[in-house]
Amino acid sequence: MDVLNKTDLYIALVHYPVLNKKGDLICSAITNLDLHDIARAARTYGVRAYYVINPLEDQKILAEKIVHHWTEGDGGVVNPTRREALSLIRIKDSVEETIDDIFQETGEPVKLIATSARSGEDSTSYRQMRDALSRGGSFLLLFGTAWGLTDDILDKAEWTLEPLKGSDDYNHLSVRSAVSIILDRLVSVHHN
Amino acid sequence: MDVLNKTDLYIALVHYPVLNKKGDLICSAITNLDLHDIARAARTYGVRAYYVINPLEDQKILAEKIVHHWTEGDGGVVNPTRREALSLIRIKDSVEETIDDIFQETGEPVKLIATSARSGEDSTSYRQMRDALSRGGSFLLLFGTAWGLTDDILDKAEWTLEPLKGSDDYNHLSVRSAVSIILDRLVSVHHN
Repeated sequence: MDVLNKTDLYIALVHYPVLNKKGDLICSAITNLDLHDIARAARTYGVRAYYVINPLEDQKILAEKIVHHWTEGDGGVVNPTRREALSLIRIKDSVEETIDDIFQETGEPVKLIATSARSGEDSTSYRQMRDALSRGGSFLLLFGTAWGLTDDILDKAEWTLEPLKGSDDYNHLSVRSAVSIILDRLVSVHHN
Repeated sequence: MDVLNKTDLYIALVHYPVLNKKGDLICSAITNLDLHDIARAARTYGVRAYYVINPLEDQKILAEKIVHHWTEGDGGVVNPTRREALSLIRIKDSVEETIDDIFQETGEPVKLIATSARSGEDSTSYRQMRDALSRGGSFLLLFGTAWGLTDDILDKAEWTLEPLKGSDDYNHLSVRSAVSIILDRLVSVHHN
């Protein structure tokens, strides 16, 4: 089963609004390897575009410089597979602007999927989400940096995926690892 | 099913011997986020220890400094979950020294599992490997940096896992992503 056969799956890495350790609302900084690792995972699993959401002007300029180096500059000449991955990156100010961008592209209502390391009562299993994805449409899968997405975003999402679980209750994966594992669980033919 | 119930699973990130783009034998450099991301994934999935293999003295000192900061220094005080993850790291000169270290600890022969982004004829599926792991024993799962493990190491391994596959033939995941996905496929209760 090709889960994404009739489906446009987009992902976003949210730097604002997210929470810090104390639960305060913050804007986090962009990390170079978040751009690379997540773009490579997105390309591997057939994601349409990878949105990097940050409203701060200097942060957006930094991200654009990195992306430009690998898509238009010397980086892409040396490493074409990296160019292919990083060309999926789109830098936006907000989740709202991202939803609008996807709607312009697909012409379909955008359904939001949130992720969280905190357990919720009505979280969705990966199998259920695969089924929902395979039925088709436009989906935006949201990942939070720092201490995660705000309740406001979780409330707006149609689904919140259950937290990743390993061998016990330790769940402090990097966002790069979490994105990779979640895309594998949702999209890979391995899990048919 | 707890796959690691009777099993001691160790992982290693190999910086030497590995291949470069042209297929030459090289020693690659240690990357800070390889230590963090892979230690966090190892801790999440119940891995006994995470070996960082590099014979170069300055590289080993660098890795030890980073690990020390998070296990004995200020980092671990600020972030105890990071300390828990990075305390799994052991820095060694070679694969042979690593095998010996595991044998000292478990008293059992160490079975080698290799990983590769290149397809081989007799590669092992993740389901087969889960079954093999669940039967018990000591296992060392090897990951190559740069352009991957040498044929010499692949030949010594009892199993080579099939390459990770997403939606098409693009398989240029970061080693951090690959380790995370492979541990999830081999160990997580999600895949029972």
